[in-house]
Amino acid sequence: MPFRSVIKFGTVLRVLSFLLIFESLFMLSGIFVAWYYEEPIYYIFLSFLITAFVGFVLWYFFGRKKKRTIAKREGYLVVSLSWVIISLFGSLPYLISGAIPSFTDAFFETISGFTTTGSSILTDIEVLPKSILYWRAMTHWIGGMGIIVLTVAILPFLGVGGMQLLVAEMPGITPDRLHPRITATAKRLWGIYVLFTIAEILLLWVGEMDLFDSVCHSFATMATGGFSTKNDSIAGFAPYSQYVIMVFMALAGINFTLHYLALHRKFSRIWANQEFRAYVSIIVIISLVVGSGLIIFNGQGVENAFRDALFTVISILTTTGFVTTDYYIWPVFLWMMIFALMFIGGSAGSTGGGIKIVRHLLLIKNSWLELKRALHPNAIIPVKFNGKAVSQSIIFNVMAFFLIYILTFAAGTIILSFMGYDFETSIGGTLSSLGNIGPGIGGVGPIENYSFFSPTAKWFLSFLMLLGRLELFTILIVLSPAFWKQ
Amino acid sequence: MPFRSVIKFGTVLRVLSFLLIFESLFMLSGIFVAWYYEEPIYYIFLSFLITAFVGFVLWYFFGRKKKRTIAKREGYLVVSLSWVIISLFGSLPYLISGAIPSFTDAFFETISGFTTTGSSILTDIEVLPKSILYWRAMTHWIGGMGIIVLTVAILPFLGVGGMQLLVAEMPGITPDRLHPRITATAKRLWGIYVLFTIAEILLLWVGEMDLFDSVCHSFATMATGGFSTKNDSIAGFAPYSQYVIMVFMALAGINFTLHYLALHRKFSRIWANQEFRAYVSIIVIISLVVGSGLIIFNGQGVENAFRDALFTVISILTTTGFVTTDYYIWPVFLWMMIFALMFIGGSAGSTGGGIKIVRHLLLIKNSWLELKRALHPNAIIPVKFNGKAVSQSIIFNVMAFFLIYILTFAAGTIILSFMGYDFETSIGGTLSSLGNIGPGIGGVGPIENYSFFSPTAKWFLSFLMLLGRLELFTILIVLSPAFWKQ
Repeated sequence: MPFRSVIKFGTVLRVLSFLLIFESLFMLSGIFVAWYYEEPIYYIFLSFLITAFVGFVLWYFFGRKKKRTIAKREGYLVVSLSWVIISLFGSLPYLISGAIPSFTDAFFETISGFTTTGSSILTDIEVLPKSILYWRAMTHWIGGMGIIVLTVAILPFLGVGGMQLLVAEMPGITPDRLHPRITATAKRLWGIYVLFTIAEILLLWVGEMDLFDSVCHSFATMATGGFSTKNDSIAGFAPYSQYVIMVFMALAGINFTLHYLALHRKFSRIWANQEFRAYVSIIVIISLVVGSGLIIFNGQGVENAFRDALFTVISILTTTGFVTTDYYIWPVFLWMMIFALMFIGGSAGSTGGGIKIVRHLLLIKNSWLELKRALHPNAIIPVKFNGKAVSQSIIFNVMAFFLIYILTFAAGTIILSFMGYDFETSIGGTLSSLGNIGPGIGGVGPIENYSFFSPTAKWFLSFLMLLGRLELFTILIVLSPAFWKQ
Repeated sequence: MPFRSVIKFGTVLRVLSFLLIFESLFMLSGIFVAWYYEEPIYYIFLSFLITAFVGFVLWYFFGRKKKRTIAKREGYLVVSLSWVIISLFGSLPYLISGAIPSFTDAFFETISGFTTTGSSILTDIEVLPKSILYWRAMTHWIGGMGIIVLTVAILPFLGVGGMQLLVAEMPGITPDRLHPRITATAKRLWGIYVLFTIAEILLLWVGEMDLFDSVCHSFATMATGGFSTKNDSIAGFAPYSQYVIMVFMALAGINFTLHYLALHRKFSRIWANQEFRAYVSIIVIISLVVGSGLIIFNGQGVENAFRDALFTVISILTTTGFVTTDYYIWPVFLWMMIFALMFIGGSAGSTGGGIKIVRHLLLIKNSWLELKRALHPNAIIPVKFNGKAVSQSIIFNVMAFFLIYILTFAAGTIILSFMGYDFETSIGGTLSSLGNIGPGIGGVGPIENYSFFSPTAKWFLSFLMLLGRLELFTILIVLSPAFWKQ
């Protein structure tokens, strides 16, 4: 095989062995939940054993080899493969417990968890064992910051190669690096992530939620995932819990570099960040419009209207997908604004998905300058972002990303309609999966679920979720013939 | 006023005076139709008089001044203004005859004609006087190749300034110029346009159509307009007429430079043109898929299915908008493919509208190369088109165009939904107007019309048509504050 010479599969399997061992340890933590709620322990324990066993076997054969830097191609391959493989093993608890008997459904639910999409095929969530619901929330939490980021943080010997993995898993544009050493960066990201998660758990626990619900919802919030332990998502909880979740969803949608700055009290630098300003502006403006609309057209009370509006706007913009109200029954132009948010997404370097705000800002700035360039064709007018000129290669990359995103959305919509789904369901299902959101419009509206899709459609949507989570390029590069050549 | 120093309004009015005189002459040709069909002649004659009078007054005050080259800014302003002004005067025949009593409706119908959109507010076309229907088709024909292109062709003294006007009116990427002298280019474009129009008139006349219908449909075909003289568009005509119209719609959607090459028997250069190949491929492939779908799912006969498929695909891709069948009642995935064509559009340098095929090709090529660039970050890999490297500034321009197009589409959809229209009508109305197509989806499906829109919505859609016809930049530049500064 000619590509053997370029891609060392040993190196790829070596990284995968570590990932599986980490995954098995995360699974193991569910044992306590099963024990506390007096549920059968074997669901989780057997899943743990299988995952850990495969991880150790791989480690035995490939993991102990002399360390070698991971090359660019191997980085892309490792990341693409690892997300598929942790999802395969991650579906074991569902299958072993019989909570989700179908393999297709179990894989869909797992990859929806890891990619922090939050689309569910479950029609009744509350009947599931607590330990399974815990694992379901855990898949979000692992996927939110990225198991690979964690691996890089913990295994410093991945060294320079770790950078390749990070670039492939978190391809967003993060001009400010937290720390020149990649391991330190990964550690700090996870540190902030853990800190916020603990804070949210405590704040929710203070309210009406028990510890279990607080943990599960905090995992889902900080990962911008959206799996709830309740059938009606967040709608049944008191306003206090809804506000807490709102705040942490909003925090999760911010570039984590800014949180690091906040911990060091560098607030002026945060407010100088143009993506942050745009993020805050979008939330405030759209919430005001939608809230006013709900008061006028739906006759809702002021607090209720603005709470629904703010919650929905933050939930969809950050691509979390928690629901307190069925926005799809709002007047068309109100839910159209929520629909429009699905094209925007969170900030770069956040756990949110979608196209991301920074990309929109760069594209809009560049298009605006293009009008100026038409009047002054000889002037060189670069795009400026946060006070610095942005290189043409970054603009090119962003534009290519935007186009591929739109084309994938269009192609996905046509493919879903080809499978027999109606216009709005095809649009909603594709956009929601690609943007890792969860709820969409049509048949996948906020109070619907994904159970009615055919197995083929479920696999297709799973692929879209993965494509979206790894921001298109990583997967497309691995699937391109050029990757396997030379 | 500070901008006086930059923009010479005298020059602007001078060009407008000529445009109005030309327009009045086109109107005058309708006299023969009124005379032949024994209709009142004053509808047309009065419109002619008013238009000609204003034109002459402007000419008297500004037209006789010493000629001066038209600057970049004046070019954009002239073109933007002229399309609005010829539409204002062009609505006179509708108003004077009482065929369309409302000014909003008359303006909508006229600008829909000039921009070759073909959206109509008329619920019964066939009751209109023939001379009015003739003028309605004529607005298409004038707008198709562009009254300014005609002016440049006929008035050589516009000189270098004419180039500015052409760039503003036909901003598509036309890498091959027909002739270094702009006047000669404009003449050749109009020559080919007239030639094809006459050929189509004759071929239609040979069939079942009378001369009047042949002329009107040929005007609408070659301009990729879509106004018919019949309520059910082309559906009532025999297959022969439908095939003739198909062929000429397809010709109108091709870059006219290629027609010029064809007249000189340089067929190998035509086939080497990548946009042409893509154009033919799209028509063939989508027609085959849609045709097969109509046989299988609609139970249509083979000839009938492929005729409907081919006609609809060509009509929508070229942004003509003639209709032989109601595609909106086809199975969802079939009309979704037609809907997708609305985002593509005709070839650059054709009379078709939309984003244009060449832009899609450049964007797709560039995105594909971006995947390669990710693997080889230091290599400089330019986009090649028709064997030549495309400059970065062109790629930038195309990307900016695409983004603004998508954003305008999104904003337009939200604005229409805000006015109370449903999801599909908002999408369909915006996309169809912006792409100068005519039929859309939802309430503006192929057998519907635009009469139900509120006056505000009609003005908004008129604005979108103009924005689309002048390919966004010209209008946006004139509307940008930077245009009026310094």
